[in-house]
Amino acid sequence: VGPGDDCAVLHTTSPFCITTDAVVEGVHFRRGDGPLEDLGHKALAVNLSDVAAMGARPRWFLCAIAAPSLTLAEVRALGRGMAQLAKRFSVALVGGNVTRARELSLTLTCVGTTAGRPLLRSGGRPGDTLYVSGTLGGASLGLRALRMRGHRFRGACRRQRRPEPRVALGLLSGKYASAAIDVSDGLLADLGHLLRASSVGAHLLASRIPVDVEVRRAFGASARALTTALVGGEDYELLLAVPGDRTSAFERACARAGETVHAIGHLVRDPGLSLLDGKGRLMRLPAAGFDHFRGRRR
Amino acid sequence: VGPGDDCAVLHTTSPFCITTDAVVEGVHFRRGDGPLEDLGHKALAVNLSDVAAMGARPRWFLCAIAAPSLTLAEVRALGRGMAQLAKRFSVALVGGNVTRARELSLTLTCVGTTAGRPLLRSGGRPGDTLYVSGTLGGASLGLRALRMRGHRFRGACRRQRRPEPRVALGLLSGKYASAAIDVSDGLLADLGHLLRASSVGAHLLASRIPVDVEVRRAFGASARALTTALVGGEDYELLLAVPGDRTSAFERACARAGETVHAIGHLVRDPGLSLLDGKGRLMRLPAAGFDHFRGRRR
Repeated sequence: VGPGDDCAVLHTTSPFCITTDAVVEGVHFRRGDGPLEDLGHKALAVNLSDVAAMGARPRWFLCAIAAPSLTLAEVRALGRGMAQLAKRFSVALVGGNVTRARELSLTLTCVGTTAGRPLLRSGGRPGDTLYVSGTLGGASLGLRALRMRGHRFRGACRRQRRPEPRVALGLLSGKYASAAIDVSDGLLADLGHLLRASSVGAHLLASRIPVDVEVRRAFGASARALTTALVGGEDYELLLAVPGDRTSAFERACARAGETVHAIGHLVRDPGLSLLDGKGRLMRLPAAGFDHFRGRRR
Repeated sequence: VGPGDDCAVLHTTSPFCITTDAVVEGVHFRRGDGPLEDLGHKALAVNLSDVAAMGARPRWFLCAIAAPSLTLAEVRALGRGMAQLAKRFSVALVGGNVTRARELSLTLTCVGTTAGRPLLRSGGRPGDTLYVSGTLGGASLGLRALRMRGHRFRGACRRQRRPEPRVALGLLSGKYASAAIDVSDGLLADLGHLLRASSVGAHLLASRIPVDVEVRRAFGASARALTTALVGGEDYELLLAVPGDRTSAFERACARAGETVHAIGHLVRDPGLSLLDGKGRLMRLPAAGFDHFRGRRR
């Protein structure tokens, strides 16, 4: 059913995944940081990332806009940012809402369909290898760079404003992974969610964490580069647990598909999270995570 | 799949309806007007009403909360308001999001399933009888009464704060109606949406409009009572078009189910909306509607 009715009417015979996520002015973005197009992109990207983390194919989305006022040009910019991403992933806008509010926010709901069983946080087992896609820490560095209003770290600023949801990797992983989550709150925080849901622990190898190249450049060899990669949020990479007998096939499939993944450790029976240096010695963990209520990384 | 994953996973073999609607502090409610429980109720009710207008059965919902800060007692109050309504209609909370914002708002997404074909706005045909459920104007009077901080018009205040979605009537109407819409923006505005979608006009009989009893008491025999019923929004009644050969069966089914509906006019071939007095004479239409951007009835 086309637009204009009280609801969209959709149909799928397979199970579907549904998620809702919001971006709010002053919390997740500032208007002066760049074009509103980026905001449209990010609002959809963070929802697509949740669907990707389930190993599902995003299909439809709804967009609720709250704003004090918007010019037609501003609405068009938001729409363009969403439309470009939606087109790339063949996701259709099927509904929405517009209301007045004191600050601009976009609350999107995304629906995806699963081909096989969905990837859950709870499927991880001792012995599984932990993989993370892409690189980490860039979005966090980008946030700081935007605050300082310099012209450095362009790549990191772009990662902060236009995150890339790992949809193809999520779909591919459905066949291999035992558990998955997207890295929105920071690697340690999101790994913590996966460990609790799977009732396991993990050993992480510090030297294997894929630190963003600009984060390395910003902090050099100091511990801060690693810390930024471990606790900086909003990278929207995928964290995957893959059983040992499927790791080779998984890595080959990723290579064929042009998806970059890094084995960063493995799951263990004993609860808790250990970070190990190159010699297998225990390192101190940085305080992790994103406080959703304070809305800022600690 | 239980809570805690990146998405909820759901399954239905029939087509499903999906809608999103928000309630925002300072636009749709003020905190001082009453308990936060009412806000939880209203946020879910307005979404259930959209599903009801499609003749669908509401099944699941997601709740995105944005707030400057909330005490545990406040979160519980919001939850209680939603939970009571959700339990009555067997609707399950399957996901959500929490973020900081300058003002409190709830953006809910509701999913329903259809047994037969969904009721659309576009199905109305010339000759169909127009029905509206319940009474009109109460929620609008309630809004004004809340602003005046008196203790009058308790029923109207309740209608404003705790609207009752017409879920059972929507389900029943699927078998009889050709078109439906819920009355959220006001009868004239929403009838206008239905007329445009169906490419028809309508004759409305002023004497048949079910004016809320407190609206009558507030405005007496003045034209303002009728105007409030015609343009006051947020009553969340259903407006239905029923083909002539099904009106008797529809009215009997409503009577059996204890659903109150009023025949208020009929659809005609010529576009436009005519309001007729008891002698069939054309009356002047009040300016209609709810401006979503200004967020207030004009």
